[in-house]
Amino acid sequence: MKEVSVLEINGERLWAALQRCGEIGRFRGSGVRRLALSQEDKQVRDLIVAWAGEAGCTVEIDAVGNLFARRPGADPSLAAVAVGSHLDTQVCGGKYDGALGVLCGLEAIRSLNDHGIDTVRPIELIVWSNEEGARFSPPLMGSLAFAGKLSCAQVHDSTDDAGLRFGDELARIGYLGKAPLGKRRLDCYLELHIEQAPQLDREGCDIGIVVGGYKTLALRIDVHGETSHSGGTPMRERRNALVGAGYLIAAVNDIGLAFAGEEGRTTTPRIECFPNLPGIVPEQVRLIVDFRHPEPAGFERMLSEIKAAVAAAEAKARVTMTVSEGWSWGTSLFAPECISLLKETASALGLPFREMLSQAGHDAYAVADLTPTAMIFTPCRDGISHNTNEDIEPARTLPGANLLLNAVLRRANR
Amino acid sequence: MKEVSVLEINGERLWAALQRCGEIGRFRGSGVRRLALSQEDKQVRDLIVAWAGEAGCTVEIDAVGNLFARRPGADPSLAAVAVGSHLDTQVCGGKYDGALGVLCGLEAIRSLNDHGIDTVRPIELIVWSNEEGARFSPPLMGSLAFAGKLSCAQVHDSTDDAGLRFGDELARIGYLGKAPLGKRRLDCYLELHIEQAPQLDREGCDIGIVVGGYKTLALRIDVHGETSHSGGTPMRERRNALVGAGYLIAAVNDIGLAFAGEEGRTTTPRIECFPNLPGIVPEQVRLIVDFRHPEPAGFERMLSEIKAAVAAAEAKARVTMTVSEGWSWGTSLFAPECISLLKETASALGLPFREMLSQAGHDAYAVADLTPTAMIFTPCRDGISHNTNEDIEPARTLPGANLLLNAVLRRANR
Repeated sequence: MKEVSVLEINGERLWAALQRCGEIGRFRGSGVRRLALSQEDKQVRDLIVAWAGEAGCTVEIDAVGNLFARRPGADPSLAAVAVGSHLDTQVCGGKYDGALGVLCGLEAIRSLNDHGIDTVRPIELIVWSNEEGARFSPPLMGSLAFAGKLSCAQVHDSTDDAGLRFGDELARIGYLGKAPLGKRRLDCYLELHIEQAPQLDREGCDIGIVVGGYKTLALRIDVHGETSHSGGTPMRERRNALVGAGYLIAAVNDIGLAFAGEEGRTTTPRIECFPNLPGIVPEQVRLIVDFRHPEPAGFERMLSEIKAAVAAAEAKARVTMTVSEGWSWGTSLFAPECISLLKETASALGLPFREMLSQAGHDAYAVADLTPTAMIFTPCRDGISHNTNEDIEPARTLPGANLLLNAVLRRANR
Repeated sequence: MKEVSVLEINGERLWAALQRCGEIGRFRGSGVRRLALSQEDKQVRDLIVAWAGEAGCTVEIDAVGNLFARRPGADPSLAAVAVGSHLDTQVCGGKYDGALGVLCGLEAIRSLNDHGIDTVRPIELIVWSNEEGARFSPPLMGSLAFAGKLSCAQVHDSTDDAGLRFGDELARIGYLGKAPLGKRRLDCYLELHIEQAPQLDREGCDIGIVVGGYKTLALRIDVHGETSHSGGTPMRERRNALVGAGYLIAAVNDIGLAFAGEEGRTTTPRIECFPNLPGIVPEQVRLIVDFRHPEPAGFERMLSEIKAAVAAAEAKARVTMTVSEGWSWGTSLFAPECISLLKETASALGLPFREMLSQAGHDAYAVADLTPTAMIFTPCRDGISHNTNEDIEPARTLPGANLLLNAVLRRANR
């Protein structure tokens, strides 16, 4: 097994594939806008399907558009070793968020082909539909549906801002597939992804083995006020929903700043306001607030400060707020056996790595409920992501890609 | 002239007309949603046209849908005495904001007919298009176009949130008229309106003669940040446009509260955020901020506090803000001759009144640039307006309606 364990991918081919995909939906310089089920999503899917076919894979699509490219194994009765990520981007996204994991998976298959290596188990490259949630909500849609957390009907009936249905758009781009949703046996799932935070980049470490996630909760906060005239209504008689929201947004950010030293994060990424018109004091505002902390105890302290901030904003703006819990995830996500596989493989390859927590959500979080899962992080410049300036260095990415290839190979011959 | 100067309107007929119009677009109990150029706007316009015809008026419509119902005078060469207001409402509006002024004008004509009184000058009842700006922007659209402040093309090309053009919608409801825009000679313009603030109601006074307006300025504030990942971006490295907006909304409200004792007002009625999606730190926010003060010196103090708040929010959120001035109006709006007419007529009728400033914007502000103008305010319960609970009492409204009738009569026989 010695020569197998030091197998290396073709870095130039990987880089060329990344740049080729990065042309599809190119936006603002080197950025990408490739929204789920858009024409650009169709183009990049078509390209991956063609490449997977050329690499000897058979491709199946399920009912929510998740794509499975299968490299046969010697024993077809065994569950496949899966790798993958997503190809859709944020509205102001980069070339590597998602695409890197898909293309490193493809490159692993191509490299095995190059070396004429067969494996006992099949290998499947998975492209999950709509990870970002930038067009259809919620995020992680394809992987959550695969894991049984969303029904096929829920996914199909989700609409974008123009009122277009996910199901209709999926059919339009030709990716409404016939494979049954979620009925797929997987031996394990390994996902490589850019870190989307600056830790690896700043420490000069090229591989993060993800042992868990920041404890994270998204809250939906509905602010209830009352319309009135923006001219004639005395200040102290107003019940201005947007003022309540403003006090809360400010306070939530202050809480994030207060917890910054222990790596806490708070964000209000979204606001909707009604009537949102000149001359009229707003009646309703809906906010999404998300917050994260590496430690459950710190998370709980943040939660109680946010609850206090809600109460203070309610009192100050004379409004009421309804708080509902949205998506959340905990700190223990991944399978010890898969984490060990990655650590042992990295050590065998002589690749330095660090264990770390993921700050972002990933398809792997959804898949981890079904099958043993782990993730590899690679550095991105300054941690910049969800921004068109997202960037990576080939030399700092190859170690992670080689780790993925060799871990897949080990597991697929198990 | 004695019997003429104590002429009284038919209060029951006025009240019945108000309730009849209030059925058109009824919304949330006793409220009204009758957006400009909607089917409901067409219905109420059709009703007013029919009533004006029955009252012996000829009706003309101009190119932006302003409606002029003319009761002939003995000398057709003289400019008409005009009265009027608007029939469109806010999205959560009431029965009386605008409609009261139109129907008091109609009632004045009906009352003159009842008593067989002819006037030397013609009398025109005007219904201005799209005063509220709740569907098409800006507010006061019809009266500003009449006054030459907006071109016909600007008005016609304004679109609503569904992308429908004002010009197309105006034609659709049958109110794209042939009368030339703004080429109309008016001797004066008198507008009766509910106060939309609580002063008259709380003082027990039934008539406000408006001698000016609160000094008012609307600012458009564009907040420029940068997208990034809401999970992985460290708090102190963010440039979150919505956080900048949150700090500013809170500070602007605090400024309004600090000036509340001297009747200052601040409002942020509208916010737009991009990308406004889960998982991504907002890059751009656009706010409208308006503020008002009864005294120019107080207004200037508010302005400098708001500018300081912009700078503080920029620094705290690491964003930049671009401030543009939008609509504004000053304190001296109306013609002394028209204010005197109203005061002398009220005194002659024995009607108690108070002089006051308007806190809201009105079509009369636009028309005042063209022709001598003044306004009468009548009380509304607790000053509530731009709210479906807007309410008035007939007994407290009739004095203002009688003042309008008698002032029109005096001026029309001049």
